[in-house]
Amino acid sequence: MFEQPYLAPCATNYEALSPLNFLRRAEQAYADQTAVIWRDRDLSYAEFGALVRRMAHWLRARGVGPGDVVSLILPNRPELLAAHYAVPGIGAVLNTVNTRLEAEEISYILDHAQSRLLIGDADTLAALGDAPVPVFQLCGNPGAGDGLDFLAADLPGATLAAGPAAETDAIALNYTSGTTGRPKGVVYTHRGAYLNALGNVAALAFDHQTRYLWTLPMFHCNGWTHTWAITAAGGTHVCLDRIDAAQMIGLIADQRISHMCCAPVVLYMLMEQMSEPSPQPVRVGTGGAAPTPALIARMEELGFQIVHLYGLTESYGPVTLNAPVFQPDASLQQRATRLARQGLRHVTTGAVLVVDDADHSVPADGKTVGEIALCGNTLMAGNYRDPDATEAALGTGLFRTGDLAVLYPDGEIQIQDRAKDIIISGGENFSSLEVEAVLHQHPDILIAAVVAAPHPKWGETAWAFIEMRSGSSPDLQALEQFCRQNLAGFKRPKKFIPGPLPKTATGKVQKFALRQKAKEMTDEQ
Amino acid sequence: MFEQPYLAPCATNYEALSPLNFLRRAEQAYADQTAVIWRDRDLSYAEFGALVRRMAHWLRARGVGPGDVVSLILPNRPELLAAHYAVPGIGAVLNTVNTRLEAEEISYILDHAQSRLLIGDADTLAALGDAPVPVFQLCGNPGAGDGLDFLAADLPGATLAAGPAAETDAIALNYTSGTTGRPKGVVYTHRGAYLNALGNVAALAFDHQTRYLWTLPMFHCNGWTHTWAITAAGGTHVCLDRIDAAQMIGLIADQRISHMCCAPVVLYMLMEQMSEPSPQPVRVGTGGAAPTPALIARMEELGFQIVHLYGLTESYGPVTLNAPVFQPDASLQQRATRLARQGLRHVTTGAVLVVDDADHSVPADGKTVGEIALCGNTLMAGNYRDPDATEAALGTGLFRTGDLAVLYPDGEIQIQDRAKDIIISGGENFSSLEVEAVLHQHPDILIAAVVAAPHPKWGETAWAFIEMRSGSSPDLQALEQFCRQNLAGFKRPKKFIPGPLPKTATGKVQKFALRQKAKEMTDEQ
Repeated sequence: MFEQPYLAPCATNYEALSPLNFLRRAEQAYADQTAVIWRDRDLSYAEFGALVRRMAHWLRARGVGPGDVVSLILPNRPELLAAHYAVPGIGAVLNTVNTRLEAEEISYILDHAQSRLLIGDADTLAALGDAPVPVFQLCGNPGAGDGLDFLAADLPGATLAAGPAAETDAIALNYTSGTTGRPKGVVYTHRGAYLNALGNVAALAFDHQTRYLWTLPMFHCNGWTHTWAITAAGGTHVCLDRIDAAQMIGLIADQRISHMCCAPVVLYMLMEQMSEPSPQPVRVGTGGAAPTPALIARMEELGFQIVHLYGLTESYGPVTLNAPVFQPDASLQQRATRLARQGLRHVTTGAVLVVDDADHSVPADGKTVGEIALCGNTLMAGNYRDPDATEAALGTGLFRTGDLAVLYPDGEIQIQDRAKDIIISGGENFSSLEVEAVLHQHPDILIAAVVAAPHPKWGETAWAFIEMRSGSSPDLQALEQFCRQNLAGFKRPKKFIPGPLPKTATGKVQKFALRQKAKEMTDEQ
Repeated sequence: MFEQPYLAPCATNYEALSPLNFLRRAEQAYADQTAVIWRDRDLSYAEFGALVRRMAHWLRARGVGPGDVVSLILPNRPELLAAHYAVPGIGAVLNTVNTRLEAEEISYILDHAQSRLLIGDADTLAALGDAPVPVFQLCGNPGAGDGLDFLAADLPGATLAAGPAAETDAIALNYTSGTTGRPKGVVYTHRGAYLNALGNVAALAFDHQTRYLWTLPMFHCNGWTHTWAITAAGGTHVCLDRIDAAQMIGLIADQRISHMCCAPVVLYMLMEQMSEPSPQPVRVGTGGAAPTPALIARMEELGFQIVHLYGLTESYGPVTLNAPVFQPDASLQQRATRLARQGLRHVTTGAVLVVDDADHSVPADGKTVGEIALCGNTLMAGNYRDPDATEAALGTGLFRTGDLAVLYPDGEIQIQDRAKDIIISGGENFSSLEVEAVLHQHPDILIAAVVAAPHPKWGETAWAFIEMRSGSSPDLQALEQFCRQNLAGFKRPKKFIPGPLPKTATGKVQKFALRQKAKEMTDEQ
């Protein structure tokens, strides 16, 4: 029988896994390389490390210490990235708040999180009103004296903790933008953040030459943990503080962007407005909706390689990834069909299962629909101050996502629908995604969102909300004709509603709002 | 104060880190892709997973279970790779034995490891004699009936453990080839193996298109944990079961090799014998001696990109890595000077320090010599059944390597000498590496190894053992003249001894043997 080593794991051979280690390494290994770029500023990793220390010092001077929650409501800018190291670096917990929330929701979150203080800027604080915690406003323009200026501050340095006491200690608290009821606080650990970040480095091939455009908000699942992953790789964070197509197109070329992540809706924006291809190839991770053939074709022409991802706030962002290598002769349709899948589990995800009601895996036949269930080190530690929700989410050994999918023989999954997006019309179940996929083949449609509307006879029917390509005005009769040719009767949208679609901060179409609108319009009829 | 989650880490959100997870993922995600190639055989990841299960079943049938040690003495072949999953998959500990050891050393290791059984092949078992454990011989040629044939076996499947009970449980036991005294058993954990493998995926950019040539023996630090890393990436293991230049050159082209690792001596062999460049670029990790300018220049011409690594058995292989990106106009001398460094710490290494006797870091000036000291999750759990050695190695919070280095301002380290390779002549200390570096600039010298020889007047003097390029015969007077032009008097070799150099299984020059020879020759004089 194996004899245990003489010493238990000790300081020499055991270190709590923590993204703080990534910054420590980057400060030494990549001291002179550019860590972060914002507007006309850039900071080397040595300078970024100093910014982190200034922020840590400032927080300590305000009495913030281990176990406190620190909230920030900011667009993508260096101070928000720095907080990803400064806050855990003093043993506190990082709470980044979605900049698009209403004042009442923000106050709820600050209160529920028992936050010690809130850091925002003039824009994000404008609508806040009375906050339940002390509020500090960052400068709008560094050096202009219009707020707190960490970038220019001359504060004494501070030491950062090497890591947490235990690697399963909390590093971040992210509130979901729940479509019903109150937002839930999702707790991330140092261990989960470290592992998911390393998994992202491997999956997206980040290295010290990576130039990452921050299209994705850092407040969204800590930017899928790329806030830590890019630093682990020694790459450059290029901050984009608002989704503006002209600015994005300029940065992609001027900053030689190699990677970015965003919702498809941002890609639609680029697709419409880019007039010439990126000077260098760009790898773009996207999720939340399957990339359409038109999107894939046009983005390839523009120099983008699309990686399709799937994940949730509760899973630190992506748990599956689809980055197929195509044969040179693969047709666009073949590529789109393949890329519509959500792919294979991420290397640091424990398991991605598609299960039936009894938690048994469905056959890997690409047909049988089950619910995606997850486990592993990159599942949240729990819902903050919510034992019932935590028990329901984690208590059974599997986290059920509520998303319905099939499993292919090659191990890839493909989402059929979010459970709540299934439409049941006249007793027939069908997927709103299927109807959207057909509409996306229409040359004049930019984005379509299909939801269930109540119907006195059929129970529900499909309604299509559509955004047209610029220059196209909708010919509703032609659209109906198009659907008649491509969809079974019960799946055809009974109503087409043109106009801009409501979107979340991350660019996802807010289907709950459309569902609400369809219900209201039905009630009025 | 942050409220802890309602549930402690549980099955849903905590999984013991283990390379077993990599195989489980690869079997699903890369089922049809080629896992391993050997001679004219290839196995997909589905087939490789089945091989692992057959081996696990066979071991269980022999009474092997959790906590047992299983020894293998094999060249690089699929069964040795499979053992990296089958043995931990039944909760046992993997002990791979160096195929070049003498019978007496092998018996010592089997006995000290309290091994349950030994698996070898006709070649590796030939010299063994009586072994203290049951011995099983693998087939020489699969299907030929000349031994145990896991590749062709029709055994029932077996389940593998999902992971160890605790991630700090032992996964492997590797005996160092100590130059003095008995070999020491170095214990690796599941956690350390998982992390170092992921670190290697990131550092060397392994992915599912990687085709890795197994030049490095798998028995050497479990192939620097690449036995697990390539599987984590879903790449292909191409087995090379003996160092044969013609076979290597053939495999590099035929198998479209993208990565390999080896000692510089193997590269010298390629450099001498390759007549045309590799059809595709090959990234090659090398360590143990700095690549010389001649080697870098010729290997670049042949299509190889050299990454210089440093590590020890106790650190699961590499802890630093030097993969500089050169400007197109960098001269060969500039590239060689930069590549001679051992580089920056690996992302999963905790810390790489260069310290003085009081454990304080030396100045990062590229001049002050200190001892390399390490800590972090990829340091061994201890020396097996050796409390004194374990305490000495790990007890202080820092593992001292015995290697002397300088630290540059950019965080890179460069080894000056192994402590034992310093030569002290007439009270002057100098580095045998420095003398070797000069000799390597001589166009007729393939490899030089410089050691201290006892000297009645000076204490020690340098002796140079040299291998000439094929076609060159040594002109000793010219060599002396060359050294006079390039080295201070006390550093000049007092003797040049031509002939083939003794090498370890991994291709490192056995300096201790040369030191011994120099001593004997001095005694005889």
